[in-house]
Amino acid sequence: MSTYSNTRPAVAVSDAMTLPQRYYTDPAWFQREMEAIHFDMWLCAGRAGQIPDAGDYFLRQFANASVIITRDEHGTIRAFHNVCRHRGTMLCQQEEGKFAGRIQCQYHAWTYKLDGTLANAPHMEKVQGFCEVDYPLNSVATAEWDGHIFINLSARPIPFEQHLAGLDRKFAPWRMAELQMVERRVYHLKANWKLIIQNYSECLHCPIVHPLLQKQSHYMSGDNEPPQPTYLGGRMDLREGVQSLTMDGSTKRCSLPGLSADDQRYVYYYCLLPNFFLNLHPDYMLTFTMWPKAADQTDIICEWHFHPDEIRKPGFTPQDAVQFWDITNQQDWQLSDLAQQGIGSKGYQPGPYSNREELLLALDRFVLQRTDKKR
Amino acid sequence: MSTYSNTRPAVAVSDAMTLPQRYYTDPAWFQREMEAIHFDMWLCAGRAGQIPDAGDYFLRQFANASVIITRDEHGTIRAFHNVCRHRGTMLCQQEEGKFAGRIQCQYHAWTYKLDGTLANAPHMEKVQGFCEVDYPLNSVATAEWDGHIFINLSARPIPFEQHLAGLDRKFAPWRMAELQMVERRVYHLKANWKLIIQNYSECLHCPIVHPLLQKQSHYMSGDNEPPQPTYLGGRMDLREGVQSLTMDGSTKRCSLPGLSADDQRYVYYYCLLPNFFLNLHPDYMLTFTMWPKAADQTDIICEWHFHPDEIRKPGFTPQDAVQFWDITNQQDWQLSDLAQQGIGSKGYQPGPYSNREELLLALDRFVLQRTDKKR
Amino acid sequence: MSTYSNTRPAVAVSDAMTLPQRYYTDPAWFQREMEAIHFDMWLCAGRAGQIPDAGDYFLRQFANASVIITRDEHGTIRAFHNVCRHRGTMLCQQEEGKFAGRIQCQYHAWTYKLDGTLANAPHMEKVQGFCEVDYPLNSVATAEWDGHIFINLSARPIPFEQHLAGLDRKFAPWRMAELQMVERRVYHLKANWKLIIQNYSECLHCPIVHPLLQKQSHYMSGDNEPPQPTYLGGRMDLREGVQSLTMDGSTKRCSLPGLSADDQRYVYYYCLLPNFFLNLHPDYMLTFTMWPKAADQTDIICEWHFHPDEIRKPGFTPQDAVQFWDITNQQDWQLSDLAQQGIGSKGYQPGPYSNREELLLALDRFVLQRTDKKR
Repeated sequence: MSTYSNTRPAVAVSDAMTLPQRYYTDPAWFQREMEAIHFDMWLCAGRAGQIPDAGDYFLRQFANASVIITRDEHGTIRAFHNVCRHRGTMLCQQEEGKFAGRIQCQYHAWTYKLDGTLANAPHMEKVQGFCEVDYPLNSVATAEWDGHIFINLSARPIPFEQHLAGLDRKFAPWRMAELQMVERRVYHLKANWKLIIQNYSECLHCPIVHPLLQKQSHYMSGDNEPPQPTYLGGRMDLREGVQSLTMDGSTKRCSLPGLSADDQRYVYYYCLLPNFFLNLHPDYMLTFTMWPKAADQTDIICEWHFHPDEIRKPGFTPQDAVQFWDITNQQDWQLSDLAQQGIGSKGYQPGPYSNREELLLALDRFVLQRTDKKR
Repeated sequence: MSTYSNTRPAVAVSDAMTLPQRYYTDPAWFQREMEAIHFDMWLCAGRAGQIPDAGDYFLRQFANASVIITRDEHGTIRAFHNVCRHRGTMLCQQEEGKFAGRIQCQYHAWTYKLDGTLANAPHMEKVQGFCEVDYPLNSVATAEWDGHIFINLSARPIPFEQHLAGLDRKFAPWRMAELQMVERRVYHLKANWKLIIQNYSECLHCPIVHPLLQKQSHYMSGDNEPPQPTYLGGRMDLREGVQSLTMDGSTKRCSLPGLSADDQRYVYYYCLLPNFFLNLHPDYMLTFTMWPKAADQTDIICEWHFHPDEIRKPGFTPQDAVQFWDITNQQDWQLSDLAQQGIGSKGYQPGPYSNREELLLALDRFVLQRTDKKR
Repeated sequence: MSTYSNTRPAVAVSDAMTLPQRYYTDPAWFQREMEAIHFDMWLCAGRAGQIPDAGDYFLRQFANASVIITRDEHGTIRAFHNVCRHRGTMLCQQEEGKFAGRIQCQYHAWTYKLDGTLANAPHMEKVQGFCEVDYPLNSVATAEWDGHIFINLSARPIPFEQHLAGLDRKFAPWRMAELQMVERRVYHLKANWKLIIQNYSECLHCPIVHPLLQKQSHYMSGDNEPPQPTYLGGRMDLREGVQSLTMDGSTKRCSLPGLSADDQRYVYYYCLLPNFFLNLHPDYMLTFTMWPKAADQTDIICEWHFHPDEIRKPGFTPQDAVQFWDITNQQDWQLSDLAQQGIGSKGYQPGPYSNREELLLALDRFVLQRTDKKR
């Protein structure tokens, strides 16, 4: 039986209340959050392994942004707004695909190289002052961390290293760059993006909502890091006899090669603000990227990644991990949707956080600070 | 043949025009009406018979409000906003059901007694200043009149007696508390709530729209009460040989026990503002509660109630009354939807009421007065 | 092979950029455009042949307007707002039909003559100051040009002749009044109305988007008129051996009777602002009327019209022309939808028009001028 006790610092009810309704429902506030947060910060877009070759691409769409992530002939990852510089036509509609060496608009055949420069703009010869060099695709900054691709829509992104804030060193032993994505699930939530981070950032709901998870990892186990400017994270312990988070707590897969004995007993849960969840298990990595669509709507892409040595073994299957998290995800998404409904209703008023919801309070403060800065 | 003549007082065209378009289409005006009217006045929610036992409950949802109506262990009817005081999660999603002694939030198991007090809030022990007594469910006032449950979302409701304004005495002979609901139909209208009251408040359209009704009750028969601050009502006569409003005008059911000979020849139509229609027939009661969803959207719950002595009789069926009113309702709802479309269109301008549409004018004045008071 | 060269006057990039995003996405701007343009100018509504007899009618719905177009007993074409003057009920819902001598409101039987005058308003006898003559249907101005019906919602329309600006003389040889509509297709676009005119007003996209059209008519052939205050138009040449725009470029139909040898080699493309496209082929007429529904939504009615002598011939079929244009239309609509998506996205910024997009620039200036005038 557990002997965990609540040793985190106390909070005062006067300092720790949930945000007022409009932060979750007002379209104008949502737009302001996007400008101050999602359009200004580094977002995890996906994995380098999704675009191994020049011309491979995928799209990411959130708020009113649509971004192409591709790889150029030199192997450099590039990102562009999905809009032709001529008359604004959307360039790609398919979620993923491969450009044949060039990005060509279907409307008038303006043609861009994979580095975004305008290679050909037919019939512009009699436009005085027109110069191809002035009309490259609108570019979006990119960065890579151990196989995770990040994008930044700001004109002046903060250095990516500053955003990572040492997480690259902390998680180096997992050698995430080596891992390969095996399964993807996409979820469409009717909830504000902040509610999804809040749900992720505490496990007080776990014994009630996630009986399977609770059986394998006690909700009071482990601990959180103090909140950081760009991330919120912590870890939990696997119960004795449990090898990983799977349907029955066992796994036939070896632990990831670089892990310490301690890290083979933990699951790490890190939210790199504002759109990336990283769940590190002894034998696999689970990633979530979140794409706000409206004040009350968010899409989530969830992916399961494994070590290639394991994938190659006969009889390899990810299903024990996929089912575990798909069940757990659905439980969380349903509650996030219910939270959106309740917070949006007339009877809502801010309520008190407990001292074990300190990361949620940190998220609220992060949002207030970021939006204030941009005011 | 009818010998009815139009003896109501004349009106002047200059004083009696319909309201401008925005009162029916502007979302901001709709919100103001809700604040000044539906969130401030007594609303009929349903019948006490729907929740006979402790823990039985049903929901009512209108504008952005969601209200739980339930019964506590002492038999007292209670109503609460459907929102947890912790992080705002919606408590119930099912339209009706039964609480097992407690109302528990699915998210973190905050648990409320059926009287709304917070019985248990797990993990709040290290929150300084937190006290369960400060976080009961947000309550909604309730009242009961002859089996009709009323709710009031205002912090300071006017006394229910004042709202009833003597209707309890007027309709005491019907002994409505004894009647039992046998059939329910729910209708989803694309019309402003005021158009539905206006449709209800005059019978000039009856010979054109409701041939079946007109056959059994002449549209010029009966008369209206002068408009009252909280209700608009009148009665009409059954034609000679007609026993009640049913498909063929006959009924096998006895009249309700307490009715005078006169009242056995009338049908009463009362609108208790702003959301309750009460149609009293010699042998049954028909009720409508209206739930505005948006400026151009209203849900209506229509229920047929009969005397238990009749219900117990072999061969009892409500279908003669159900079909009569379902047909009549659909005719009215279609016209209300058409009115919404026309009033919302560019060609609309206010038009003149006749002297027999005096209750409609009274409704318009009621709306203007209430919204003005709250300005 | 073509020997066409780009001889149109050069433009300067500084003078010829597409409009900012909000002109295509902002609902308030859309409303302003409607007031200044569609509610103020002559719109092509359909064909006189659709309503040959008194009482025949069809509806046109755009923005929040709904207009009845009908014919009175004297054979005069009439148009009215589709709204009863009593309580604003929409009069007709069916897209087309026939009035039995009168237009009667379904609600209270207010009855109008086909010229719009109020013939009967029951139960208004005790309304002081009420006079039928004060409550005719709200009328909409009408005009006719060679069988095309035009409507104008303004209280003071400019003279229709001034709107036509000589096009009646220019296209007199086609004797359009004689032609009969044989086929109709209705398209629902998710695109701003201006994007559809822009698509129509240049053929630079034709070799890329419309291979079938390009095979039969070279995209650089023909020329445009200088932009006019009320129309934008030009013509293109049929390639040698091509008889008309059909699936294979041949036609069994005779040319329209009045055409010169030259006009039998051309296709004319005229946009009479703001809602009418007129495509004149040697052997048939194609018309498009456009009905804006929202900033990002437009309905298009496309109709194929032929000479009655041809229609009467055994074996007549319009399908060679219908298929050609249905394919071409769908290609254009898809691009207009993509343009809407791209222009609405975060990465959009105004881009440069070429010198062969001079009509698009003229459209933008027309919109700015009209909306400014009404400011």
